[in-house]
Amino acid sequence: MKIGIAQINPVVGDFPGNAKRILAAYRECIEAGAELVLTPELSLAGYPPRDLVFKSQFVPKCLQALDYLAGETRDVPLLAGYVDHNHPKHPGKPFRNAAAWLEHGEIRHRIWKTLLPTYDVFDERRYFEPGESCDPILWNGKRIGVTICEDIWTEDYLQRPFYDRDPVDELAAKGIDLLVNLSASPFHLGKPALRRAMIGGIAHRVKTPVVYCNAVGANDQLVFDGHSLVAGANGRIQVQVPGFTETCRVVDPFAPAENDAPPDDCEPSHIYQALVLGLRDYVTKCGFSSVCLGLSGGIDSALTAVIAADALGPQNVRGLTMPSAYSSRGSVFDSFALADKLGIRCDEVPIGPAFEAIKQTMRPVFDGKPEDVTEENMQARIRGLLMMALSNKENHLLLTTGNKSELAVGYCTIYGDMNGGLAVISDLPKTRVYQVARWINRGREIIPWNTIDKPPSAELRPDQKDQDTLPPYEILDGILELYVEHHMSADEIVARGFEESTVRWIQRRVDLNEWKRHQAAPGLRVTSKAFGIGRRMPIVQRFVG
Amino acid sequence: MKIGIAQINPVVGDFPGNAKRILAAYRECIEAGAELVLTPELSLAGYPPRDLVFKSQFVPKCLQALDYLAGETRDVPLLAGYVDHNHPKHPGKPFRNAAAWLEHGEIRHRIWKTLLPTYDVFDERRYFEPGESCDPILWNGKRIGVTICEDIWTEDYLQRPFYDRDPVDELAAKGIDLLVNLSASPFHLGKPALRRAMIGGIAHRVKTPVVYCNAVGANDQLVFDGHSLVAGANGRIQVQVPGFTETCRVVDPFAPAENDAPPDDCEPSHIYQALVLGLRDYVTKCGFSSVCLGLSGGIDSALTAVIAADALGPQNVRGLTMPSAYSSRGSVFDSFALADKLGIRCDEVPIGPAFEAIKQTMRPVFDGKPEDVTEENMQARIRGLLMMALSNKENHLLLTTGNKSELAVGYCTIYGDMNGGLAVISDLPKTRVYQVARWINRGREIIPWNTIDKPPSAELRPDQKDQDTLPPYEILDGILELYVEHHMSADEIVARGFEESTVRWIQRRVDLNEWKRHQAAPGLRVTSKAFGIGRRMPIVQRFVG
Repeated sequence: MKIGIAQINPVVGDFPGNAKRILAAYRECIEAGAELVLTPELSLAGYPPRDLVFKSQFVPKCLQALDYLAGETRDVPLLAGYVDHNHPKHPGKPFRNAAAWLEHGEIRHRIWKTLLPTYDVFDERRYFEPGESCDPILWNGKRIGVTICEDIWTEDYLQRPFYDRDPVDELAAKGIDLLVNLSASPFHLGKPALRRAMIGGIAHRVKTPVVYCNAVGANDQLVFDGHSLVAGANGRIQVQVPGFTETCRVVDPFAPAENDAPPDDCEPSHIYQALVLGLRDYVTKCGFSSVCLGLSGGIDSALTAVIAADALGPQNVRGLTMPSAYSSRGSVFDSFALADKLGIRCDEVPIGPAFEAIKQTMRPVFDGKPEDVTEENMQARIRGLLMMALSNKENHLLLTTGNKSELAVGYCTIYGDMNGGLAVISDLPKTRVYQVARWINRGREIIPWNTIDKPPSAELRPDQKDQDTLPPYEILDGILELYVEHHMSADEIVARGFEESTVRWIQRRVDLNEWKRHQAAPGLRVTSKAFGIGRRMPIVQRFVG
Repeated sequence: MKIGIAQINPVVGDFPGNAKRILAAYRECIEAGAELVLTPELSLAGYPPRDLVFKSQFVPKCLQALDYLAGETRDVPLLAGYVDHNHPKHPGKPFRNAAAWLEHGEIRHRIWKTLLPTYDVFDERRYFEPGESCDPILWNGKRIGVTICEDIWTEDYLQRPFYDRDPVDELAAKGIDLLVNLSASPFHLGKPALRRAMIGGIAHRVKTPVVYCNAVGANDQLVFDGHSLVAGANGRIQVQVPGFTETCRVVDPFAPAENDAPPDDCEPSHIYQALVLGLRDYVTKCGFSSVCLGLSGGIDSALTAVIAADALGPQNVRGLTMPSAYSSRGSVFDSFALADKLGIRCDEVPIGPAFEAIKQTMRPVFDGKPEDVTEENMQARIRGLLMMALSNKENHLLLTTGNKSELAVGYCTIYGDMNGGLAVISDLPKTRVYQVARWINRGREIIPWNTIDKPPSAELRPDQKDQDTLPPYEILDGILELYVEHHMSADEIVARGFEESTVRWIQRRVDLNEWKRHQAAPGLRVTSKAFGIGRRMPIVQRFVG
């Protein structure tokens, strides 16, 4: 049996566009011999549609598009993900996260998602009512179990036993020859390997091949990595579709294993590919074709520039280096060296005169008070203002270049260097920024080595270094991972061997800077817990623990 | 039977502080003769604690505080709201939204909330597992039904039949003499009257008095308005506790109706009180004592200044008026007139020299391109920068003064006039801003009449008026209400009699400006659908409908 895996990249709410994408992939799979074609979860609506589903015409237009899709099918069935209404009299949420089995011009079956994740980045119980029963679909003498994403995420792979049902067991109990899954499973580090292990385990447990079709592409903060796959009935991964790229693959889940290349689980490579895809999709799906960013000579802006040039082409990346009296000439030199290497345009715009004018303006109000962090922030905000001016005048989307460590402790200036439409590396701790930069420079120099090797500095006062204010990044990042990603208390972190005063200082800085992150640009998630959609902290609160 | 209603103002995560607040109110109620004391939903934890509950020590510390509270009780039972663990082996979410019946030094009963709202501003299924059964508590020969907030929000008052259970019916079927409800029900316009109607209806239906204790105070974007009440068994509202203020009231739900003053449902008064409370709590619970804001001579900043001066005292409000070449002298004059009237300090800081310096800085890059919206934004951003400088230097929380109409269509400058820690009136459509301003000026002049009567202008280019760019505010606000609050499609709005081109222009502006609102300061919610926590739209999307 030949099954087409259409690992496509839908755009949220783009029914005509997504229908076209699905049909093109459907036809490509048929050309390659597919007898049944899978698409990702909510492939017609894009995932996650969030509150768009409440718009009065969202579901009606989705159903219209589904009818159109159905009309285009012949004898090869197509499984498409879409949003359906819950019955008006049926208690619960107004919608269903649904999949339709389209065949011979009509909708033959409708499947509702049973397990609705409502944790981390997921809010499905806000919108959807779970399916009541899981029934195999009889087709060509085979019994096919159709599941949607979370339906196969069984207890061992969740943080706790979230659900009192197991759709895979329900289907297996009714008898299936094949299990298929339509997913929109977002990337974070380690997730592709986790999915392989989980899906192999399911296949082995129910003694049935599993064909897993995941979405690829980015929508807002979530990057979907694809990595669709097939597990044989023995639990072995037979086919591993490449990640981070749209592709169609026709597979036979009952055939002996193909000799696919072993999976590439190199962490910096995954991060880099996720960020390139995330940036490209954010910018282009928003209707922009080019970006601008400030180049400081530091590693964060350098890494962001490399990613942008790769994602959009160097001709679509515009740099500005904005030295002050406190900037080293080396920083300007490094900025231009990077721009040269990447082939992007960079201009130099000194901020001295604007800084003087602003200080002069506030002088009567400040009334002789000494310079302090106010004036440091002024410089960052003048740069942010100049970047937005360039963005406005030339219609680039401004990228902000802050990393996760500084966003965590607020070592960044709101309305200054935090300005931008997308925070490309805001989920990368500083130590990861270095790791990815070194990986980019493997056997070559793209980012100037000087940028990587010099001590990091915001250059907002004479001879400033990050480590004047912050603990060494290895320690900072170690503590942040425990505090932010694992929700540990200060006592628990100290018990791991970190110095108490450092832990408490970091804890307080993280808590106090919630308000800045509330106003931060959306960032691309690559770790298990990013600041952003999956982490929802109150700003006004007094918990210490 | 005398019941104490402790309408208190908890702070999220402040277990020691909330325990003190609860105990003080408990004792005050006992002094006044209470035989049983009610506090609001999650009174010990504050509502909503959001992802704080995932912190490893949050629930343990909450339970510790509950034990302490229990130890302080004697023969008068105290009902306190708290967060409990779900049993580790019990499938579902890790926590319970709980109430504890504390008496004679111990926890006598634990009640789980049954209906968990997961819509609008609520995310309870992200955290909590619903209670399995509702059982009356036998006390002093009476059977008391204890419910938590949503448990009494029955089908007629929800957007659709969300739940397949009705805790009030379950309790009534088992027999109750009294129904009590612990709530943290946030304010929006019309909600107090809605609650009276609903609770009166419940009392009438189950033929039992209802005592309703609601939280008061603000946490982030939500303002809890109090308005606790008692409905007699005949459905009549016997007691109406005042709104927007902490208070303890001892009531006898079985006694004949008191002669309470009729409820004040004046809309501008409710809005004004909600915003004063919301601003005061946001600022002081964050640890600030003072605010600053830009005074433009326009109505938005004027209204915000009045609210701030009322909430914090005029000595804690600091204004700056920042005229440009395009500002009328009238605007500066009106700003000082308002500051005089309120007794707040205001300084004048012209932005001309800074504007020139910034334009000069970008001249080589802009390469002769004509002035456009870039230079308009520059002015707004210089002002934003100066306000943040004042905030940094003198440690004021900066208020941003934009209204809902301009935030909707993006008629505001990100990193400029959008700068600030709190967006005080960002849920007030411009027509409401005028309504509240006129209400403030009832029989007197606090806001200069000139500010109210002149045509609104951003004053970013010569002789600019809002209506050069925007439809008249009556039309804009009418369309926005249908589009944003009621999720109507453009066609449906046009069918209401609005001009199609205007509707489509507004729709496009609202959709395109989602990215700006993503980075907006938190605002205080006063309508049924604010931008912010209760509205979660994707930024990258292509739905038009």
